[in-house]
Amino acid sequence: MASSDKKILALSGGVGGAKLALGLKHYLPAGQLTVVANTADDFEHLGLSISPDLDTVMYTLAGLNDTQKGWGLAGESWSGLAALERLGGDTWFQLGDKDLATHLMRTLALAQGKTLTEITALLTQRLNAGVKLLPMSDDPVRTMIETATGELSFQHYFVRDRCAPIVSGIRFEGIEAAQPQAEFMRLLQSDELSAVIICPSNPFVSVEPVLSLPGVREALKSSRAPVVAVSPIVAGLAIKGPAAKMMQELSMPASAQAVANYYGDLLDGFVIDESDAFQAEAIEALGIKALVAPTIMKGLRDRIDLAQQVVKFSTSLV
Amino acid sequence: MASSDKKILALSGGVGGAKLALGLKHYLPAGQLTVVANTADDFEHLGLSISPDLDTVMYTLAGLNDTQKGWGLAGESWSGLAALERLGGDTWFQLGDKDLATHLMRTLALAQGKTLTEITALLTQRLNAGVKLLPMSDDPVRTMIETATGELSFQHYFVRDRCAPIVSGIRFEGIEAAQPQAEFMRLLQSDELSAVIICPSNPFVSVEPVLSLPGVREALKSSRAPVVAVSPIVAGLAIKGPAAKMMQELSMPASAQAVANYYGDLLDGFVIDESDAFQAEAIEALGIKALVAPTIMKGLRDRIDLAQQVVKFSTSLV
Repeated sequence: MASSDKKILALSGGVGGAKLALGLKHYLPAGQLTVVANTADDFEHLGLSISPDLDTVMYTLAGLNDTQKGWGLAGESWSGLAALERLGGDTWFQLGDKDLATHLMRTLALAQGKTLTEITALLTQRLNAGVKLLPMSDDPVRTMIETATGELSFQHYFVRDRCAPIVSGIRFEGIEAAQPQAEFMRLLQSDELSAVIICPSNPFVSVEPVLSLPGVREALKSSRAPVVAVSPIVAGLAIKGPAAKMMQELSMPASAQAVANYYGDLLDGFVIDESDAFQAEAIEALGIKALVAPTIMKGLRDRIDLAQQVVKFSTSLV
Repeated sequence: MASSDKKILALSGGVGGAKLALGLKHYLPAGQLTVVANTADDFEHLGLSISPDLDTVMYTLAGLNDTQKGWGLAGESWSGLAALERLGGDTWFQLGDKDLATHLMRTLALAQGKTLTEITALLTQRLNAGVKLLPMSDDPVRTMIETATGELSFQHYFVRDRCAPIVSGIRFEGIEAAQPQAEFMRLLQSDELSAVIICPSNPFVSVEPVLSLPGVREALKSSRAPVVAVSPIVAGLAIKGPAAKMMQELSMPASAQAVANYYGDLLDGFVIDESDAFQAEAIEALGIKALVAPTIMKGLRDRIDLAQQVVKFSTSLV
């Protein structure tokens, strides 16, 4: 087990990233892990401020997520959504009755002048998430997806249109003016940092916004802490979400190796699935150490095992 | 049955008023009834714009109200409220999962610049309320309750503190600057108006705000249409709510006669319950015609019967 006085930082999007974050929570001593979640897919819907990745990570860390459905809260009910439909409201985004309470609390706190960091700290504490969870920024950044038929906000692309439009480009509105969350940036620049783990999240829409915040990429490169990513692509497919489809549309091969190539010299190590072991050599040729491990996390045990392997791998890279 | 080319206007608060409004809907020909609801107990809660009286009337007219519980929607669920409690949110106001959809729709529409009239029209149409329902005003008016221990907003007094504080005075914040809803005012001044029915709602906090809007009392007095009120006090008790308790605290006898006296020369007729028949003479001595009728509305039949008696009584006063 890693020494408890050193900090580990995990960068995460939603569902896939949250699985590894949960493994890290269980594997690491209390207080060692900080998770930074993407907020570029946050959006305003029905007057509510919704932070899908933050919520997915928070619910997962708190053990409240629906493991059957793969998203949302376990035991969720949908009375409000049915009532909303009757009233002619927008129902393309599935708002559960319990989940709605989170959005109400966040929206109210933001309207009262609290920061996303403050409200996230409050919510994770109330839900006993047991891990420090930070938004990547307290400033609004919004992923916009360029498609053949025009630009779409991320949730319109991802949820409403079910990732069907062909992606020709991606931009992060507001990224130049956004500051990385202060504690996140302090940790990145701290000697206490022992590793940065990029969770198996979508490189283009979940991780790239975090890396694109002013100063983050530079701080990662300057840090003595190794940066290790876990491939979200296994055997040419994304475990969840549109990563593989996006890669093809953006004229990249949908492979673990292409993800390593995409992250490039930011990485010290890259973790690929056993089914992609044959790509290890090509990845190492990029100057990135490769670890082959079972990366498909079906249950909690898989998550903890992968967390352990990733942490030990990162320690070996110092 | 009253002639269908004349309009009837009902002024209503919440639960008690909505019962008679429903009776009127069933008794009168389609298109004849307009209900104006009090909006002075509207409030902002958890960032939502809530209009309790409008919603109670709307749900009741649409047949969606919970007749067992006496308030809210039938078949309501409370998952969101439980989740809100876990998150440390305010739960003193019982927000049901279905009801929440109404508040979300209204809050969003108001934020988009729609008027309360417009959103009420949309919601009543979606729910098939079948009656024109208008807010008393599109401008914010807020009932403030003066008590021995300080001033309370109406919902804090009514819901959070369960009407326990002793009332020493009532004021309607914003009333001087508020305009009566335009269609309401046009109808009040119209020759088409054949009767105004003041429903058995709380005279002080449900009806008084409507009457206190600039120009409303004058228009009622100038109108040739008779004004008939139904007593909310039966045998010295309020069927629902704090009317009787308030009367005592405001140094009035809690009686139907005292309500007639309170409305005074605004009224042409006053409907009292059979149990208060002995007060008819004293009421007529005030220059107000009295009708004795069974006013306790237990089921739909009672509501329609009372509506019929009230309409016929008003017709007799022309």
